[in-house]
Amino acid sequence: MTEPAELAVRPAGEADLAAVVALLADDPLGATRESPEDLTPYREAFKRLADDPNQRLVVAVRGDRVVGTLQLTLVPGLSRKGSTRSIIEGVRIHADERGSGLGGRLVTWAVEESRRENCQLVQLTSDATRTDAHRFYERLGFTASHVGFKLQL
Amino acid sequence: MTEPAELAVRPAGEADLAAVVALLADDPLGATRESPEDLTPYREAFKRLADDPNQRLVVAVRGDRVVGTLQLTLVPGLSRKGSTRSIIEGVRIHADERGSGLGGRLVTWAVEESRRENCQLVQLTSDATRTDAHRFYERLGFTASHVGFKLQL
Repeated sequence: MTEPAELAVRPAGEADLAAVVALLADDPLGATRESPEDLTPYREAFKRLADDPNQRLVVAVRGDRVVGTLQLTLVPGLSRKGSTRSIIEGVRIHADERGSGLGGRLVTWAVEESRRENCQLVQLTSDATRTDAHRFYERLGFTASHVGFKLQL
Repeated sequence: MTEPAELAVRPAGEADLAAVVALLADDPLGATRESPEDLTPYREAFKRLADDPNQRLVVAVRGDRVVGTLQLTLVPGLSRKGSTRSIIEGVRIHADERGSGLGGRLVTWAVEESRRENCQLVQLTSDATRTDAHRFYERLGFTASHVGFKLQL
């Protein structure tokens, strides 16, 4: 029996882009919103992310394979005595790896990175329909204290 | 009868800092979280905001008086075909101006600025206890589609 290859979390490179977009598209909400057959808009967005020192786009890799992704944004601010907060977005886990603890590992990475960057608060919003995700975040210590509002432009 | 001075929305300068912190502190939640008597941590945070091209900290002024504030953050990302989204934080209106339409004016500024910056989505979270704020955002066209999770570090 072969042991599964070891898991690592590292910054996403441009070579990971197709794999990351495939993860974004393989999702009940993402399926209608993404265009994995045309990476052009994602390449432009990747450059904006790479140029912004407050962005951390990471991938989880098992061996050579991208199996998860997450985006962490550092947001300086005045409130709470000049606290910097961080925002987690775009958490996606490959279908083969769901239930494996990888999601917890990725979010824990984001929380630890936020501590290293002296953030006082980590926040995220989750679509109201993703009830499994809500339980997942509560198990990781998050509190569902807020209502998340969105306006499409 | 004197007409009230005209209202303007403009970028916050360091000279506005005491007035902005006073607004953050004059709030049921902010009262326990802010230190308007010591501006040192706010000065450091103001510098981080000023150095970050994706941040827009603005004040609403009536004549010379700061009567409102809001922070808008532009967040590039891969999801939704490489969309940039914006996040509204720290909306505060002076007690004398509440109910005057100023909150709507400030949030509308943020939505328009987000359009100018080619954002496809504007989002914010509001504490679950701020039910008046929820109605306010729904009137402005926002949808309460998400649950907002926070983790204090």
